[in-house]
Amino acid sequence: MGDSILLAHGSGGRLSHELVEKTLLPFVANQELNKLDDSAVFEASGRLAFTIDSYVVNPIFFPGGDIGRLAVCGTVNDLAMSGAGPLYLSLAAIIEEGFLLSELEQVMRSIKEAAQEAGVSIIAGDTKVVNRGQADKLFITTSGVGTVSPGVDIAGANARAGDKVLLSGTVGDHGIAVMSQREGLEFSMSLESDCAPLNGLVAGMLEISPRIHCLRDPTRGGLATTLNELARQSEVGIIVEEVTIPVRGEVRAACDLLGLDPLYVANEGKLVAVVDPGDADSVLAEMKRSNYGRDAAIIGEVTSEHPGKVMIRTRLGPSRILDMLSGELLPRIC
Amino acid sequence: MGDSILLAHGSGGRLSHELVEKTLLPFVANQELNKLDDSAVFEASGRLAFTIDSYVVNPIFFPGGDIGRLAVCGTVNDLAMSGAGPLYLSLAAIIEEGFLLSELEQVMRSIKEAAQEAGVSIIAGDTKVVNRGQADKLFITTSGVGTVSPGVDIAGANARAGDKVLLSGTVGDHGIAVMSQREGLEFSMSLESDCAPLNGLVAGMLEISPRIHCLRDPTRGGLATTLNELARQSEVGIIVEEVTIPVRGEVRAACDLLGLDPLYVANEGKLVAVVDPGDADSVLAEMKRSNYGRDAAIIGEVTSEHPGKVMIRTRLGPSRILDMLSGELLPRIC
Repeated sequence: MGDSILLAHGSGGRLSHELVEKTLLPFVANQELNKLDDSAVFEASGRLAFTIDSYVVNPIFFPGGDIGRLAVCGTVNDLAMSGAGPLYLSLAAIIEEGFLLSELEQVMRSIKEAAQEAGVSIIAGDTKVVNRGQADKLFITTSGVGTVSPGVDIAGANARAGDKVLLSGTVGDHGIAVMSQREGLEFSMSLESDCAPLNGLVAGMLEISPRIHCLRDPTRGGLATTLNELARQSEVGIIVEEVTIPVRGEVRAACDLLGLDPLYVANEGKLVAVVDPGDADSVLAEMKRSNYGRDAAIIGEVTSEHPGKVMIRTRLGPSRILDMLSGELLPRIC
Repeated sequence: MGDSILLAHGSGGRLSHELVEKTLLPFVANQELNKLDDSAVFEASGRLAFTIDSYVVNPIFFPGGDIGRLAVCGTVNDLAMSGAGPLYLSLAAIIEEGFLLSELEQVMRSIKEAAQEAGVSIIAGDTKVVNRGQADKLFITTSGVGTVSPGVDIAGANARAGDKVLLSGTVGDHGIAVMSQREGLEFSMSLESDCAPLNGLVAGMLEISPRIHCLRDPTRGGLATTLNELARQSEVGIIVEEVTIPVRGEVRAACDLLGLDPLYVANEGKLVAVVDPGDADSVLAEMKRSNYGRDAAIIGEVTSEHPGKVMIRTRLGPSRILDMLSGELLPRIC
């Protein structure tokens, strides 16, 4: 079937079936997906979380990951941010005619590995092919379903004055890693995307404190935008201490060079948690025990002052408003 | 915010929020979606169906529908083809920089209307923007969740020798309608896509006969490809009578002109049902009572001969193999 994607791979006919059966299924095979019916069927009960995200990252391969790992982790994380244990994913690919089958296989391998790490199965899928020049290589959309345990009530609107704001690690790694790859910059050999599934980290945190108020992963728009979303949704103020926010030296250097603020740069393996002050220390300790929370820190707190706004106390002392991202910082970062 | 999509609308920051709150949410607002959390949460129990499809149709507006109606109906139908009553959809849009906001609103209006007709809520969403020339206007991916009633067991592998094969109406309407719009051909004023949600039709059929064996909507690859899929999955033969397959006069004329076979042209509001012979007449009568099954017909039967293959008895008498679509007939038809 040649070494690149043809329009006929999207026809729904013979080549579509060959593509699915020979190139895609071998990586993600499971009983439900293998049936190749119009829907997958599974048993569930209770509260279910449901989410969807498209991934259009450019380039599709970057230090620390690729679009496949990103598409699995991003949707797993959106489920985890609602306190849900991810169960199943569905995945739809839009592929540009001429895309290399070898690259598609590489992406499928990443999808398989990330799904295994997160403990989710991909039980439904779709493939479309568009003519050369009508898409840029490969776009992936993943949707996910997960279960929310009884008693868990996590929402962007649940932050309360007095709550502590926790961050699971360094900010800006993903955006700068993708940016450096895209622009051919080589800031450092060690600069990698933080792209990772956070459901294990969240499960540990919820065991310590089932009453966590908010969880959110600071992806597009970065930490600053996520904090603003939470302040707006909960109608509270948030104040953070700049000095407590961990930023890798290489990321800070790259940001200085590019005129970027790491607080606005995308992350793909970090979370912000808003927790009751009485739980903050024990949740932090639990986060630090996780592979993906080693550099966790308490970065601020929720206040009844300046509702809807985020203030940052800078290294130099004075406080300023930390606004939501305005304009476009880095297109196609996820 | 201007009259077309900017890269900043995909930043995750201020303009992204404005786009969601002012242009997208007003059309599909509901309690769960309005929360703007990372996942929507709903209660469910029992067997759930889960599916996903991307839509890349070109042009995005065509006689009888547009990409929005297609994205809702296509996923509703994939759920219905598993015998599931659709509950919730999630929807992700990949938008090209420069796409007109007025066109986006028109698509959102279609999404709203189709969702209302099908009785589903869109409870999760995502928007990405890519640079001009990196996508063609608008791609939409929808994922859906539905419930399968106890006792219903519909799968492509369930056809048995002796079963009757039913078709809900005329074939080729969608493909020819899109094709005529794309190529600027005007075959007929009355030629429209059949794009429609079939969950109501299926619910009626399942009330008459909960033990329907297979349901499938003959989209890409057309009726011929769908019949081949069922023959392969069930390891049975299928024999159909060409004279029983309804084709509109305009569709036949357009196909003749373009050198196409309507049996391979995509449909978006039709279904194939494989039912126990004892149920065939009552299911057919029920289909004919539905708005979307008025032209339904019994078109053939399942046989233990030639397993995995479909035979067609032609108008002129002799039978021939009706193969799966090979090659690309009409790119970006859905």
